Amino acid sequence: MSAPGLSRVLETVLYFGSEADTKAFYSDILGLRLIHEEAGRHMFFRMGDGVLLLFNPSATAEAGSVPSHGATARGHACFLSSDGDYTRWRKHLADRGISIIQEATWPPGATGDQVRGTSFYFRDPSGNLLEIASADFWPS
Amino acid sequence: MSAPGLSRVLETVLYFGSEADTKAFYSDILGLRLIHEEAGRHMFFRMGDGVLLLFNPSATAEAGSVPSHGATARGHACFLSSDGDYTRWRKHLADRGISIIQEATWPPGATGDQVRGTSFYFRDPSGNLLEIASADFWPS
Repeated sequence: MSAPGLSRVLETVLYFGSEADTKAFYSDILGLRLIHEEAGRHMFFRMGDGVLLLFNPSATAEAGSVPSHGATARGHACFLSSDGDYTRWRKHLADRGISIIQEATWPPGATGDQVRGTSFYFRDPSGNLLEIASADFWPS
Repeated sequence: MSAPGLSRVLETVLYFGSEADTKAFYSDILGLRLIHEEAGRHMFFRMGDGVLLLFNPSATAEAGSVPSHGATARGHACFLSSDGDYTRWRKHLADRGISIIQEATWPPGATGDQVRGTSFYFRDPSGNLLEIASADFWPS
């Protein structure tokens, strides 16, 4: 039997250090809509057809209402810019003192008709490596 | 100036221990299409309009072609089942010896017209907490 289908990633997870700094960063600087929160444990943000979940790893390391999870180091996620907003993002973050660490062209080893794009990297207040991409440049 | 737009999460990241076990699990058991890999460092899988990236954290902890990242503990991600496949997923995993840890109903505090759904939890070979959901039950 082949595997049943998965239509997409619904929840992408990162972990935070300072709750207040994290909330300000994702709400005010990235402009995401907070859809659910539990003080001391988590804050959930809507992004397109998925959600971005930020957890306090010391709270999620203990099994509670859901099984335990939690990474204490520096995770990574990449967000797709809305059409035409990629360049605006660079200025928006720079104006708020967020350093762009690096910019890259993707994907590695692109062949003739493959979508190409660029992305840049920056860090959230916890040190998670975030990336904003200009296009979905991965093979479909 | 309000923030520019982000249309969706493009890349969701988890970290692995055993490369061979991870590749077999995501390719053969979850049935995802491997779109890019670099032995010893990463394997990338397509899922719907996004991609799931699995990295060896000891390789990504060193800055190389991209800035450093890497979490050594147990991450978490949730995947949305294709329509009608939620129950098939439970049987598919059980038939392959993957334990379902828990099943839950979502979202917490749902109000009258909010979409409700169920999800179940299991672990990948590295201990990451994975979840398959029957619906996108989060506020839009």
